[in-house]
Amino acid sequence: VSDDRPSRGKRPLSGEPVVDRALGLLAAFDPAHRDLTLSELSRRAGAPLSTTRRLAERLLAWGALERGTDGNYVVGLRLWEVAALAPRSQGLREIAMPVMEDLYDATRHHVLLAVLDGDEALLVERRSGRGAVPVAYRVGGRLPLDQTGVGLLLLAHADTALQERVLASSDDRRALRRTLAEVRRTGIAVINRRKPAPVVSVAAPLRAQDDHIVAALSIVVPAGGANPRTLEPAVRSAARTVSRGLGAPTAMTPAP
Amino acid sequence: VSDDRPSRGKRPLSGEPVVDRALGLLAAFDPAHRDLTLSELSRRAGAPLSTTRRLAERLLAWGALERGTDGNYVVGLRLWEVAALAPRSQGLREIAMPVMEDLYDATRHHVLLAVLDGDEALLVERRSGRGAVPVAYRVGGRLPLDQTGVGLLLLAHADTALQERVLASSDDRRALRRTLAEVRRTGIAVINRRKPAPVVSVAAPLRAQDDHIVAALSIVVPAGGANPRTLEPAVRSAARTVSRGLGAPTAMTPAP
Repeated sequence: VSDDRPSRGKRPLSGEPVVDRALGLLAAFDPAHRDLTLSELSRRAGAPLSTTRRLAERLLAWGALERGTDGNYVVGLRLWEVAALAPRSQGLREIAMPVMEDLYDATRHHVLLAVLDGDEALLVERRSGRGAVPVAYRVGGRLPLDQTGVGLLLLAHADTALQERVLASSDDRRALRRTLAEVRRTGIAVINRRKPAPVVSVAAPLRAQDDHIVAALSIVVPAGGANPRTLEPAVRSAARTVSRGLGAPTAMTPAP
Repeated sequence: VSDDRPSRGKRPLSGEPVVDRALGLLAAFDPAHRDLTLSELSRRAGAPLSTTRRLAERLLAWGALERGTDGNYVVGLRLWEVAALAPRSQGLREIAMPVMEDLYDATRHHVLLAVLDGDEALLVERRSGRGAVPVAYRVGGRLPLDQTGVGLLLLAHADTALQERVLASSDDRRALRRTLAEVRRTGIAVINRRKPAPVVSVAAPLRAQDDHIVAALSIVVPAGGANPRTLEPAVRSAARTVSRGLGAPTAMTPAP
């Protein structure tokens, strides 16, 4: 696909590279850049201004982008409508939500639902109380695998290459390796964090048809409150209920 | 853009039409078609199989599509991650959610958040109790403007052309016109529906910076339960709180 790059001269982009460029415009948006002028869009996407303008027109016409009241580009409602059909986010959320509500009613702080994506966890849903302990989690945002309950749970069951990458960048490789083994042994992840507020998180796996772990469910409560051991059964049981909804064979039989 | 259509012969698509084609692949997915084979994708998008395969490759590489365990195409997590930045869906949801929770706690059935999109309302969020009255609403799904509380609210404040289109296809044009006038006069929409279960819905407007109505918030409860008039103050007040969060000038001053 490299023969259509601008470095080759003035020949206009054609074929698939133009699709990559259009997707590059979408990728220019992130939580700190939700609202972009044309030139910001062009710069962040690394595309010439004229190309950016032409492609943005197509994305606007379809509804993948919209223009805000100030004329800036924002991500469009139509994109969200299609994205709401993604099985690994909204689809999972639909099945998990009633159980997340029950778990929330029992704790009144945070209930998180996250999936593995690349070298991070992506937060698919968060159910939080108004008076809940402050956390920096945003739906659609990314969480570090080695510093969150859901992250540790997903990491412990991820492929070895990913585990080694995360271990390699860890301050205390030996402790993390031990933690991951413990998560695999017990089936849940428990983490204590100091910042932004002292919290305890307890995470359990969500399994689907082939018993493969597809997501992690956790509760996050203030440290020094409930003993995390008392929260384990609630999280395990909720995760099991969702896994049954996802068709996991081991969730179909009575618990051992 | 029509000079690159297949009817012109074998010349490959180039430039913007290929972007439209790629977006067309995304539009092939809907609630009844969340999982497509390559040939279904090709047929639903109206694109030749070879074009579909090439474009799907680009969308897979970026993460706009993924392949499920059965090899079928599904909407990808990466698309959802970008779409979670859309101000009119997830952005609005982030501001409205705490208030929706409070409203839910007071009613324990359904709390809906919807925006106008084309000739329908798009459901951005739904907070529902486990024992709530059955409804057919799905987050990311579409609701008819003339048959739902949020729809009537949005329609009553929509532009005249849209109102006339909906009125033209209404069974009882005169009654609908009267209802819309009543919604504008009172500032809220109240609707009684028989199907799929008898429900009452009460909706109020969410306003943003320029006092423009950007969304509607409603509660849906079983008919014959609470008197809808007793629910009005709760919905009005919740909508006002969210509007203040959205920067609406009229929500900044004490209520009249």
